[in-house]
Amino acid sequence: MAKLVVMYRNPKDAAAFDKHYSEIHTPLAKTIPGLEKLVVSRGPIMTPAGPSPFHLIATLHFADMGALQKALSTTEGQAAAADVGTFATGGADLLMFDTHDA
Amino acid sequence: MAKLVVMYRNPKDAAAFDKHYSEIHTPLAKTIPGLEKLVVSRGPIMTPAGPSPFHLIATLHFADMGALQKALSTTEGQAAAADVGTFATGGADLLMFDTHDA
Repeated sequence: MAKLVVMYRNPKDAAAFDKHYSEIHTPLAKTIPGLEKLVVSRGPIMTPAGPSPFHLIATLHFADMGALQKALSTTEGQAAAADVGTFATGGADLLMFDTHDA
Repeated sequence: MAKLVVMYRNPKDAAAFDKHYSEIHTPLAKTIPGLEKLVVSRGPIMTPAGPSPFHLIATLHFADMGALQKALSTTEGQAAAADVGTFATGGADLLMFDTHDA
């Protein structure tokens, strides 16, 4: 299973971010072809030393890296990516990798 | 479901890291009480712009944040955490958060 992890850094306005994320971005993301599951953090993102610089972490699951890369090139994938720029005022780090259960 | 994400930065010796991770660290991690699933990256961790600074990402799944925090305080959790210091020569970033399916 391949994963696209989107790590949103603390935005300027957390309430506005949360509203846009749930009302606009999540529905957009869920239209991405090949998306098998969307898992989103709830509450604070902590480190062992205390709060992290991240406000929200979303993990998009795809069958494999080919499906993930194809998804990003679709109209729906491009629309979701473009939308990130409209609300992720703290920036977002994206990581893509294949996984296996150990 | 709560997750502990361990993001290992590129180590000095990737082959030595991989050997220790699979032969010593994974068996240790799997003894942690309350661990429901251990998902590990396979192959490169990419960003949209190219390679990331990370060599391996492990995600440990627990029932909830209480189970995660309890797990870290156990003898097995402490042993696994101490082991990280012996092979993660590039360092490791830890993030802990609750999640839900969106």
